[in-house]
Amino acid sequence: MPIITLLTDFGTADSYVAEVKGALLSRLSHVTIVDISHEIPPGNVRAGQYLLSRAWRHFPEGTVHLAVVDPGVGTERHILAADSSGHRFVAPDNGLLSFLPEGARFVSLPIPAGAAPTFHGRDVVAPAATSLANGATLDSLGTAVTHPHRAPLPTPYFDGAAAVGEVIYVDHFGTLISNIPPSAMKPGARIRVAGIDVGTLRRTFADTTRTALVAFAGSGGTIEIAVREGSAAEQLKVGVGAEVRTVTL
Amino acid sequence: MPIITLLTDFGTADSYVAEVKGALLSRLSHVTIVDISHEIPPGNVRAGQYLLSRAWRHFPEGTVHLAVVDPGVGTERHILAADSSGHRFVAPDNGLLSFLPEGARFVSLPIPAGAAPTFHGRDVVAPAATSLANGATLDSLGTAVTHPHRAPLPTPYFDGAAAVGEVIYVDHFGTLISNIPPSAMKPGARIRVAGIDVGTLRRTFADTTRTALVAFAGSGGTIEIAVREGSAAEQLKVGVGAEVRTVTL
Amino acid sequence: MPIITLLTDFGTADSYVAEVKGALLSRLSHVTIVDISHEIPPGNVRAGQYLLSRAWRHFPEGTVHLAVVDPGVGTERHILAADSSGHRFVAPDNGLLSFLPEGARFVSLPIPAGAAPTFHGRDVVAPAATSLANGATLDSLGTAVTHPHRAPLPTPYFDGAAAVGEVIYVDHFGTLISNIPPSAMKPGARIRVAGIDVGTLRRTFADTTRTALVAFAGSGGTIEIAVREGSAAEQLKVGVGAEVRTVTL
Repeated sequence: MPIITLLTDFGTADSYVAEVKGALLSRLSHVTIVDISHEIPPGNVRAGQYLLSRAWRHFPEGTVHLAVVDPGVGTERHILAADSSGHRFVAPDNGLLSFLPEGARFVSLPIPAGAAPTFHGRDVVAPAATSLANGATLDSLGTAVTHPHRAPLPTPYFDGAAAVGEVIYVDHFGTLISNIPPSAMKPGARIRVAGIDVGTLRRTFADTTRTALVAFAGSGGTIEIAVREGSAAEQLKVGVGAEVRTVTL
Repeated sequence: MPIITLLTDFGTADSYVAEVKGALLSRLSHVTIVDISHEIPPGNVRAGQYLLSRAWRHFPEGTVHLAVVDPGVGTERHILAADSSGHRFVAPDNGLLSFLPEGARFVSLPIPAGAAPTFHGRDVVAPAATSLANGATLDSLGTAVTHPHRAPLPTPYFDGAAAVGEVIYVDHFGTLISNIPPSAMKPGARIRVAGIDVGTLRRTFADTTRTALVAFAGSGGTIEIAVREGSAAEQLKVGVGAEVRTVTL
Repeated sequence: MPIITLLTDFGTADSYVAEVKGALLSRLSHVTIVDISHEIPPGNVRAGQYLLSRAWRHFPEGTVHLAVVDPGVGTERHILAADSSGHRFVAPDNGLLSFLPEGARFVSLPIPAGAAPTFHGRDVVAPAATSLANGATLDSLGTAVTHPHRAPLPTPYFDGAAAVGEVIYVDHFGTLISNIPPSAMKPGARIRVAGIDVGTLRRTFADTTRTALVAFAGSGGTIEIAVREGSAAEQLKVGVGAEVRTVTL
């Protein structure tokens, strides 16, 4: 069965997500639909990009990822379909797919006359996703785009021996997720968040007391800062954009 | 695979929705279950009716829609199964299905002795939904009902050339959804919400500045009022029931 | 199609649940995945245990239940797979499965070297769940555990003719769910919550006025206290742990 994942900022209270799923199931009766998240803060393309960039690799090849965080719906921005590493993506051309590596291919989809100007997710993105899940080639869906809009997540840099990055996401537990891979740290280096020392890298967030800050290599591949029984975001009073720095004493 | 949609006010924190799904899957192993919403405000039949009235048409013929917003659970109100336009519905007889057009057929279901008086959704509605998904006829499930309880959503009226309606739903984005179809407006008419002018009808909510109010023909077929990067409900301080009026100057 | 249910404290905003589902679908293409709840308060093993203890019986035999409420992730606590009444379970060994009856069998799973220390749900629990759904025996997955960690939900006791229990869960509607089965009550006994009389047992919560407290035999098999159009928890200002007592006058 083909798999289609959904990531939107629609929330789950209204009928919007179900209307998208109805549009999928009307065109493709055997399909596994998986929600990644519908709780992207409205219009927050960057948060949507972060979550999709870490979720997609966990699905099997052939999966189609439908992503709609689209503050520009109904403007002249395009809808893209993309192909990368055996996965397919359909999303607005607003930077949401900027995590795709070199070699990703993109096409721009036509907008049918009857599409609701405020709901391209249902009327443009969903039909394209079902076409891809049914085996359509990328080129059959639209015209090639060589320069999609790019708004990549920030990357860390080196300041001497120190890696300097930032918090790129705060999760449900209040854990601060940075963009610094553990491999960028010197052995024994300490980590500072917004200037506050949180110690050296531990193996897991239980390697300290229940209410202490702890840094570790997170499950998404970068350094995270957490409090085992609490929220690091609340304790440090920081959020997305806060500086994370490794310091060798 | 048959499709069964679910709309309830159960929330998603507890096990209630899963118990309904278990009841479905215990009777029908191959089925696609789609959540429409479980975040209907507790007991708000009108909000449930609105969401179901717009979602059901997007699913293929043969879909069974299970809807439980049921402040009268365990009282003498009946449980209905209904048939309309090739779709089937199972819901309490409290007005939740009032959107179904003329020609819809209804039967009243027996309540089995063992059904939990406070959980007919699991013990009465779910088994009936699986029977319908398995091909049972409406008449095999209960006795015909010719006058189901009706509590239709309010409809607009004309005051001279002006169409006068109201806000019937406020969505996750704070967008105000009225009950006035765009076809009821004279060309060039302006829209007023609770007495405040929000301009003429635009094509989409991006056709103005990021924080201005804008009216447009919404994806559900009626006029909506939104703020592109904000909440029209908060900006206007209005909600369900607020007057929406078209004004020709 | 095999069924796998999921119960976690991951929330639904982040990508964690989807990463677990991707791990399942990468190993098992035909599977029905059902969310029980992802809104267990972070680390609240007791709430998770309560919800799983009532949901699992509603699924057909052969279902695999994946449960991750795991404040000790990455510590020395084990991951268990269990078998009881034809259902299988995978969960941390922290008491989450204490509801399983005598006769349940348990094995402890090895932790692969590559598993993320903070995400055993994705890297240990999910693969084991797919193995079980694919027909693997419990014994093929790990080594037998005869004394899993037990933290059973509190049980009521008798104080003379009075049954004395407590609130073990508060649901989305503010309904107080006790641990006292209706069979423990003398006919005509009254119910007191935190010392406040809420009357005799009624058949359903509609058997009183809309804003009065009412006790009834709930759909989970124990006495509940609710307010039809309101929240008993708010009205009584009590929560989990509040005493519930039956009183024969």
